[in-house]
Amino acid sequence: MSMLDSPASKYRAYPVLNLPDRTWPNKTLTQAPIWCSSDLRDGNQSLIEPMSPEKKFKFFKTLVAIGIKEIEVAFPSASQTDFDFVRMLIEGNHIPEDTTIQVLTQAREDLIARTFESLQGAKKAIVHVYNATSPAFRKIVFKQDKEGAKALAVHAAQLLKKYAAQYPETDWRFEYSPETFSATEPDFAVGVCNAVLEILEPTPSHKVILNLPATVEVSTPNVYADQIEYFGRHINHRDNVIISLHTHNDRGTGIAASELGLLAGADRVEGCLFGNGERTGNVDLVTMALNLYTHGINPQLDFSDIDSIRKVVEECNQLPVHPRHPYVGDLVHTAFSGSHQDAIRKGFAQQQADAPWEVPYLPIDPADIGRSYEAVIRVNSQSGKGGVTYLLEQEYGINMPRRMQIEFSQVIKAETDRTGLEVPATKIYQILQQEYLTANSPYHYQGHRLQESDGLTDVVIDVLFDNNLHTLNGQGKGPLEAVVSSLALDVDIMDYYEHAIGNGSQAQAAAYVQLRQGGNKAVYGVGIDGNITTASIKALFSALNRSLTA
Amino acid sequence: MSMLDSPASKYRAYPVLNLPDRTWPNKTLTQAPIWCSSDLRDGNQSLIEPMSPEKKFKFFKTLVAIGIKEIEVAFPSASQTDFDFVRMLIEGNHIPEDTTIQVLTQAREDLIARTFESLQGAKKAIVHVYNATSPAFRKIVFKQDKEGAKALAVHAAQLLKKYAAQYPETDWRFEYSPETFSATEPDFAVGVCNAVLEILEPTPSHKVILNLPATVEVSTPNVYADQIEYFGRHINHRDNVIISLHTHNDRGTGIAASELGLLAGADRVEGCLFGNGERTGNVDLVTMALNLYTHGINPQLDFSDIDSIRKVVEECNQLPVHPRHPYVGDLVHTAFSGSHQDAIRKGFAQQQADAPWEVPYLPIDPADIGRSYEAVIRVNSQSGKGGVTYLLEQEYGINMPRRMQIEFSQVIKAETDRTGLEVPATKIYQILQQEYLTANSPYHYQGHRLQESDGLTDVVIDVLFDNNLHTLNGQGKGPLEAVVSSLALDVDIMDYYEHAIGNGSQAQAAAYVQLRQGGNKAVYGVGIDGNITTASIKALFSALNRSLTA
Repeated sequence: MSMLDSPASKYRAYPVLNLPDRTWPNKTLTQAPIWCSSDLRDGNQSLIEPMSPEKKFKFFKTLVAIGIKEIEVAFPSASQTDFDFVRMLIEGNHIPEDTTIQVLTQAREDLIARTFESLQGAKKAIVHVYNATSPAFRKIVFKQDKEGAKALAVHAAQLLKKYAAQYPETDWRFEYSPETFSATEPDFAVGVCNAVLEILEPTPSHKVILNLPATVEVSTPNVYADQIEYFGRHINHRDNVIISLHTHNDRGTGIAASELGLLAGADRVEGCLFGNGERTGNVDLVTMALNLYTHGINPQLDFSDIDSIRKVVEECNQLPVHPRHPYVGDLVHTAFSGSHQDAIRKGFAQQQADAPWEVPYLPIDPADIGRSYEAVIRVNSQSGKGGVTYLLEQEYGINMPRRMQIEFSQVIKAETDRTGLEVPATKIYQILQQEYLTANSPYHYQGHRLQESDGLTDVVIDVLFDNNLHTLNGQGKGPLEAVVSSLALDVDIMDYYEHAIGNGSQAQAAAYVQLRQGGNKAVYGVGIDGNITTASIKALFSALNRSLTA
Repeated sequence: MSMLDSPASKYRAYPVLNLPDRTWPNKTLTQAPIWCSSDLRDGNQSLIEPMSPEKKFKFFKTLVAIGIKEIEVAFPSASQTDFDFVRMLIEGNHIPEDTTIQVLTQAREDLIARTFESLQGAKKAIVHVYNATSPAFRKIVFKQDKEGAKALAVHAAQLLKKYAAQYPETDWRFEYSPETFSATEPDFAVGVCNAVLEILEPTPSHKVILNLPATVEVSTPNVYADQIEYFGRHINHRDNVIISLHTHNDRGTGIAASELGLLAGADRVEGCLFGNGERTGNVDLVTMALNLYTHGINPQLDFSDIDSIRKVVEECNQLPVHPRHPYVGDLVHTAFSGSHQDAIRKGFAQQQADAPWEVPYLPIDPADIGRSYEAVIRVNSQSGKGGVTYLLEQEYGINMPRRMQIEFSQVIKAETDRTGLEVPATKIYQILQQEYLTANSPYHYQGHRLQESDGLTDVVIDVLFDNNLHTLNGQGKGPLEAVVSSLALDVDIMDYYEHAIGNGSQAQAAAYVQLRQGGNKAVYGVGIDGNITTASIKALFSALNRSLTA
């Protein structure tokens, strides 16, 4: 029955370190690590569609706004695009004083020369060099013995020193990674890094970063922590070294490995927002950081508007955040079961403003990251006939996006609380109409003209406002952006989704727009029309009106 | 700048256990735990749209096929739907001899009576009772002191005994959960469980399951492991007890917590496939199980066709599996960077059939779970102008699903390997046409007639086969299922996606169908047509022809 009758013949456990006197399990987290984002490098290299320079720059500015002070921005010797991006950041003076960019390179002289060239004129920079040190890589990939791998690392360090001397105007820092560290013999990893330190001669005021990757996650996370503690004990010049963690998530334990690695004495964490990166991704910096709150520690990063950050990252990476992703997923601040809802209600009622947070089932206050708790009621669920979503889809072809399903369930709940009745599909659709489709005040959309050229859309909108006809003009990339620009309002579109209802000449388009106006909570609007563009403009006004009259 | 200036005033760390003589960090995983699926209960209760009885039954059969021997199927006293589902399983004789169903109930006599009623006639069953024991729940939710919480648990145990005696024909087993265990004082949790054991009087041949939930994840996973080891040391009748883990993923470390809990002596793991469950989900049983392979341990579960399991779960839960989900995500057996591709190529070349698995960057052989490794080449990525996906979308409005992007990149790669040239958008579209849109052999679709009533579709298809016109008849739920039924072939549709190209009267529909024929690898087909149904039927034949001629 099982897929492999004797897996021991195909797989074997990676060796573990014997470290019975480890101390990390007695420790607790006490402070935020140094954060380094690898989104623009490790993250970007693992996308089906790598980011355009514009997207990379947008992502960079988001990372700066979050407060990440070390940002790996490129592999400049590997491509002209990456090289140009580094030049753009430096020549455009886009790097804040308190932020350091970092670039990656392999340990070859031509690549290192090109790397330093890309950084010319930077006030400060981290040059990050690596070579793989594990037995499998030495044997299979490089046909190298231990001495060969160590010599390559030493040579790389010598090159770093040589080229840094040629650009004395920059404040250089160095990072060395024994790639595949977690699969490398621990004493050999220490030996290679000690040899690198002998060349680089770090000081307490000018430390070298030693970055210890779990390039592929191969063991339970406590094994990685043992490796980190062992490394910290045996590395020379510990006070002159920053120990950096770089975990991946092949076993689904990348966050745990980095957290236990911090207990084991590491100083710094490299990762990506929401866990992007090769294969299963790098460690998720957002979850790592927000976990610290529940330990009473300020992560020194700003996630007070997590949905906006998520929006930028989803646009740039073209990858979704999962609905159950910690802290940010659509479903993680919800409760579906009655007993959970009851406990949370009691918790909110008893929570004192100045007392420690203590609401059942909610590890942090969703408001601290710009979200809100939602008790999701299910209509007809007890009858087994399906709920609101199912009925709307079956009867009316309406297929609303997940987060709107949660919002809409609140609207339905208000109705069931009032009437105490079971709600049939006709009534649900009627509520949808009242709440969304006929949300015509204060802005009542009348019609539009539209022109597109060179990717830019010009729109003229006729709209009733206080029963007076206004004509608005706007321009943008696409109809929605153009309409938003025509309104003298602080409007941000958070989500957009559209689908057909029916098909052939009878087909209608249903559009869903989630927007945030001013400091208000983000709300959805819905528009249905035979014309796709009209449906989306109607949805935008529906959302805007709901926000303004909430 | 940061979102909370002094979070210590709002959040505080949960107390940790002082256990300096812990032994679990010296242990390694040596065998598979007892697996218990909570998909149909904990998982189902956290869906926006709970499963219909049909979906629940389909999911149940999948769990049985995987080889999970303990399945929590319902909360029968909470709803008629759940009650009826349990009756259906028993009366329909759907529970294999070696499988035990489990049901959950709260500790009230009327609910326990109803629970046993639902199980009448079962050959064997586990009745699972719980009450929350943590200080916050005692204080906020139940207004209860420690004695009150313990008395409730003892009373529950007495009721289990009383009602079990009324149904002597069933082989009863009992499970008790101190809910919120990980936030409960460790000695109190032990005290409550010891009191429960005094009533239930387990024996080595008739053990009681003590299930220790991290209902909400509140600490690093090593703290949970300490709690489990402490519990195992202090519980009476250890040999008569099965210690069960039940972790959630609020901090993104639910898998780690369960793994370290196993090192700390636990025997059993409750969770859900792909990590469904309240909020951030229960622990993911698939990742837990497949991780064991990399430790040389047979998990005793069958995931040799992981994509089919994923398909059932996605359909039932109406939730996606993330592209970076360990082992099963669309992107996790890919390599994008040239150096990774090079190392993997060398690894495959050197891998001996009977030697331990040792391919760089691939923790397990994708073939063992019915997947394959894909080296994804990016066209034009170095120019920063975007790759295949971007060009097709910009120039032709083609927006293929992610997994097809990976498949299609192989087709493009074969072309670039052959010509060595950069591939412009026109050439990419031409390759798409040749490979997918004109894949007309052996089946050349000519036209169809279609009729729908009562949700059933009847279809008549005209198709050339070996240049002879054949007319096929089929019926099913929807056009694709009807067409499949008209073919005397073993065809399984794995993925389906459709979108509009352009809009208004000029709009075309693009359809993408991934199917698996016989034992072949799953492949995509594409159809484009003014009619949505025609596009999807064309896509189906495109995929079928590609599979048959591969």
